[in-house]
Amino acid sequence: MFQVRTDLAVEARELYSKEKKREVPGVEVKKEEGEKISIVRVKVLDEIGEKYMGKAKGNYITIEVPGLKHPDEDLKDEISQQIAKELKALINNTESTKSLIVGLGNWNVTPDALGPKVVERVLVTRHFFINYNKQSDETFANVSALSPGVMGLTGIETGEIIKGVVEKTNPDLVICIDALASRNMNRISTTIQISDTGISPGSGVGNKRLGLNKEYLNVPVISIGVPTVVDAATMVNDTMDLIIHSMKSEAEVGTEFYRILEDISKDEKYSLIKEVLEPFMPNTIVTPKEIDELIDNLAIILANGVNMALHPGIDLKDVNRYIK
Amino acid sequence: MFQVRTDLAVEARELYSKEKKREVPGVEVKKEEGEKISIVRVKVLDEIGEKYMGKAKGNYITIEVPGLKHPDEDLKDEISQQIAKELKALINNTESTKSLIVGLGNWNVTPDALGPKVVERVLVTRHFFINYNKQSDETFANVSALSPGVMGLTGIETGEIIKGVVEKTNPDLVICIDALASRNMNRISTTIQISDTGISPGSGVGNKRLGLNKEYLNVPVISIGVPTVVDAATMVNDTMDLIIHSMKSEAEVGTEFYRILEDISKDEKYSLIKEVLEPFMPNTIVTPKEIDELIDNLAIILANGVNMALHPGIDLKDVNRYIK
Amino acid sequence: MFQVRTDLAVEARELYSKEKKREVPGVEVKKEEGEKISIVRVKVLDEIGEKYMGKAKGNYITIEVPGLKHPDEDLKDEISQQIAKELKALINNTESTKSLIVGLGNWNVTPDALGPKVVERVLVTRHFFINYNKQSDETFANVSALSPGVMGLTGIETGEIIKGVVEKTNPDLVICIDALASRNMNRISTTIQISDTGISPGSGVGNKRLGLNKEYLNVPVISIGVPTVVDAATMVNDTMDLIIHSMKSEAEVGTEFYRILEDISKDEKYSLIKEVLEPFMPNTIVTPKEIDELIDNLAIILANGVNMALHPGIDLKDVNRYIK
Amino acid sequence: MFQVRTDLAVEARELYSKEKKREVPGVEVKKEEGEKISIVRVKVLDEIGEKYMGKAKGNYITIEVPGLKHPDEDLKDEISQQIAKELKALINNTESTKSLIVGLGNWNVTPDALGPKVVERVLVTRHFFINYNKQSDETFANVSALSPGVMGLTGIETGEIIKGVVEKTNPDLVICIDALASRNMNRISTTIQISDTGISPGSGVGNKRLGLNKEYLNVPVISIGVPTVVDAATMVNDTMDLIIHSMKSEAEVGTEFYRILEDISKDEKYSLIKEVLEPFMPNTIVTPKEIDELIDNLAIILANGVNMALHPGIDLKDVNRYIK
Repeated sequence: MFQVRTDLAVEARELYSKEKKREVPGVEVKKEEGEKISIVRVKVLDEIGEKYMGKAKGNYITIEVPGLKHPDEDLKDEISQQIAKELKALINNTESTKSLIVGLGNWNVTPDALGPKVVERVLVTRHFFINYNKQSDETFANVSALSPGVMGLTGIETGEIIKGVVEKTNPDLVICIDALASRNMNRISTTIQISDTGISPGSGVGNKRLGLNKEYLNVPVISIGVPTVVDAATMVNDTMDLIIHSMKSEAEVGTEFYRILEDISKDEKYSLIKEVLEPFMPNTIVTPKEIDELIDNLAIILANGVNMALHPGIDLKDVNRYIK
Repeated sequence: MFQVRTDLAVEARELYSKEKKREVPGVEVKKEEGEKISIVRVKVLDEIGEKYMGKAKGNYITIEVPGLKHPDEDLKDEISQQIAKELKALINNTESTKSLIVGLGNWNVTPDALGPKVVERVLVTRHFFINYNKQSDETFANVSALSPGVMGLTGIETGEIIKGVVEKTNPDLVICIDALASRNMNRISTTIQISDTGISPGSGVGNKRLGLNKEYLNVPVISIGVPTVVDAATMVNDTMDLIIHSMKSEAEVGTEFYRILEDISKDEKYSLIKEVLEPFMPNTIVTPKEIDELIDNLAIILANGVNMALHPGIDLKDVNRYIK
Repeated sequence: MFQVRTDLAVEARELYSKEKKREVPGVEVKKEEGEKISIVRVKVLDEIGEKYMGKAKGNYITIEVPGLKHPDEDLKDEISQQIAKELKALINNTESTKSLIVGLGNWNVTPDALGPKVVERVLVTRHFFINYNKQSDETFANVSALSPGVMGLTGIETGEIIKGVVEKTNPDLVICIDALASRNMNRISTTIQISDTGISPGSGVGNKRLGLNKEYLNVPVISIGVPTVVDAATMVNDTMDLIIHSMKSEAEVGTEFYRILEDISKDEKYSLIKEVLEPFMPNTIVTPKEIDELIDNLAIILANGVNMALHPGIDLKDVNRYIK
Repeated sequence: MFQVRTDLAVEARELYSKEKKREVPGVEVKKEEGEKISIVRVKVLDEIGEKYMGKAKGNYITIEVPGLKHPDEDLKDEISQQIAKELKALINNTESTKSLIVGLGNWNVTPDALGPKVVERVLVTRHFFINYNKQSDETFANVSALSPGVMGLTGIETGEIIKGVVEKTNPDLVICIDALASRNMNRISTTIQISDTGISPGSGVGNKRLGLNKEYLNVPVISIGVPTVVDAATMVNDTMDLIIHSMKSEAEVGTEFYRILEDISKDEKYSLIKEVLEPFMPNTIVTPKEIDELIDNLAIILANGVNMALHPGIDLKDVNRYIK
């Protein structure tokens, strides 16, 4: 049975349909191609889709912006607006919606620090609503934010901390921000995935055992993620594919060598690589040299998007006033 | 009625007894003077003591180390051991005691970052106990740790976050680490206060409305604090006292001027200074230039003390292995 | 002889003219009062002015923006533009002017880190000019930048490092950025001083023995400074003045007490305070609690101003593209 | 002609001798194998050795410590002492030797920040010698230190800055600390290379055009480096070798496939991989997930080694007093 491991729904779907030459059963895909920004909407419809995709039922919106590696200010603004638009469509928030933003990941590990860095830049207001005893406001929404850290830092599972805080503060909505792993270097810092399914156990760069989803937290959970690393085995695998592909085009059809190359491009290759690599590089990541700068840029873009989506009185003109 | 505002019990007591020339009613004081380290044990016995001191009933142990401004490694180790000893006496922990260490304060404001910096260096183990399904261990205790941030960063009161986490993780004990305000520059980074009363609403460098104490959290709460700032009005006040004192010694007894100087050294002076200073410097702090370095040193000393107090198998010889 | 110690020409002048009820000899002052931004131009004309001011001959432009404590984006932009305008007037740079930006101060001490933080955000281009073997460009000027650190970190005087680099790289102009000490909490982070005299030995928050000026470096030196701390003795002194002033207004003219209050407001008071404070708080600084955030804001404002002043093709519209 | 690109002399030598089954001409190799620490001494004897190794004539001492990935305090101390011992043998310093420590690399890019982090922890004393007008001291040597930054941050080549500072401060010796690139994940943070040849143009993680060596700086230059990254093409290449090796052992000798596998393990494979990878991942690095922590550990170990090697009065007992 076909099974892939990637944090991106769009990659899981791609891998399946490339291999099988057809759409994933139980999955619906829509694409909107723009000049600078393309959007792929993957909808996992039912349990069949869940099984093939390894992803929970729900919507996965992927904003693809190849130019994000070297963005100018206009492009950054455009993406923040697109994020805001997509979030608004998913959230359906009213004037009195109370949101909790959760920044997942380890702030001490650069490529894993995206979530905490977004949380630093989100405009939090919940304490003002409590101090002034207000239920709603025309300009600002009720927003709180927390970066719980990872288990190695706290000894506590992220899910337990968030569950405890949700029970004390009763938000109507949780938005999780996380760094993801992709299979493709080209997606690093250029792909933004927004989903209404929350986060499932075991996904993300770190390891989580409890899901951050409606089932566990009892409130709707939106997740926003951006790939910041590629795992080493994946990278070797994909490069070998490219090399084998170029060898095949030179080998004569029908020779023993061609047949072997045909055979080689199979699932077991990935396992073989993993087996070879593991002993001498567990926990190895592949990441761009300038990852520190990329993460800072992404944190601003995402925080701006979240701030515009939640606070009714904040638009592009003044969003930069609210971040540091 | 006499009332003082300081985070240190030892200062509250000093101010009262200096003014009234007698011990605070409802308070017991014991001193142990050493060559490098002196210890003052202030015990607030009853509600009368609470009223005069502005501090909850319980034990306040003050470790005073003037040499801590420029400590060598031996002195650091000695203090860590003293902290461990005092903590052990207060805690009475058994092999299966589960502790949650809470780092209070704002990591973005240097003199307020002590708590979070200690938490970074505490050896957390709770996840191993869960993964291996163990109740106790000969070498390590069950320890978790969290820095909840301040309300300006999260929109959530510290107390709410900790209460939520305590309810999910059920520790037997909470230890809070916090930066304090002192009335005296000499105490900055040289005085360590350990108390079994937890933290009351409104104390500390920041502002808290919920107490972090047994009453609210339903588990015993130990607090450890070190002064890192002096408030500006206090500093002006104390300098003026010194100056007035030196003027008085030169003024002739019986003159009008001497009488006025006599009159001037009263409570209203402090209010007057506060009134004069407030409009042009709210939120002003007085702190040593090298505060960044002092905080880093203190964080290691406190983390070592906590690690040795909690983990049965960690002593001075190997404590530095467990901090970064 | 009247002598004051402050990094700000505008304060030195104020203190003299307040005391003596006339303008400083050898000094010319012009003021432009705006709604949000006021500008004071102090010109030290000759050696007499130098003696009274304790400042080298030249221009001291002070941009005063009380609103800078809580600036919105528009105000930040306005100040960056004002800085750019004043710099351009002082520099008179042509298409081929090569500038070296120097960030003075210690990056480990928050209120002293302004210079290094500006340097991080300056657009450096010198290496492109060398790689492409160009002398000039329509859009970009030839700019290099360096934060030499302080003597406690390097063992080397700042002046020696800069002199060595100037001799190797031959810039036409040096611009120094530094954190200053003010006598007045109100000026912290709200006053920007630009001068064409460089930096004299012994000024600034740290201690420098070599001047960073044309005499030593053999190229014109512009300095930009913002006060980030007040020294403790100054603050006590100024508060006492306010208190004595309010006492005097209540004391009867002609009484002994009034006479003594009259006597007390003299230069020796400052020395007395310094004497009293020194033993127990050398290196004490008085600074706003939110200094970390204020410094970050100022670094962006100053870097934007410098980038617009130097690079002919960068204006307000796109200046934010070039900073992080 | 055989030519390899690696920063480690020991790897260049390994690659040659593995391929050619003999020692590199013009190169002398000695090994000392210990339980935890092994030392390989590679001496490039003449121009023939230089040509084959791609490394300047001189001594390359490699300290190999597999356990450095998870070191305890004792192991750290042992390595610091070994570094001190090797440095002392190379330096031959007298009581009046003046050293300048140079921290190469970009402090904003985690795996490239090793040099600047060591410089932060080196005990600098040059300013005391100047202030007290001393030539020598029984306890401390005359040491200064500088992290010049990289060209992208300053617009100035590292070599120019160092040359300028050397000319102003006249040290007798320069010690450069740098992060290196290795061909082998196992060497990341476990191999320390000390050399008396300085640093040649183009080596290191960043790009340098001017050499930091005796030829350019006119004083002896010692370099200390530790690999912190592997380049992506190298990693793919080496993994493919392992896979091909395991395929070959299964393929029948004499078949076409075996011949092709034989053919494939040649130099052109590396070029092919580089060609395939380059377009979609320039500047990609492969590094351990916990690189931030590894760098911090290494910085302490190296700084301790340097401090013990240079300062006659500092030994293992008190070295930790001098680092932060």
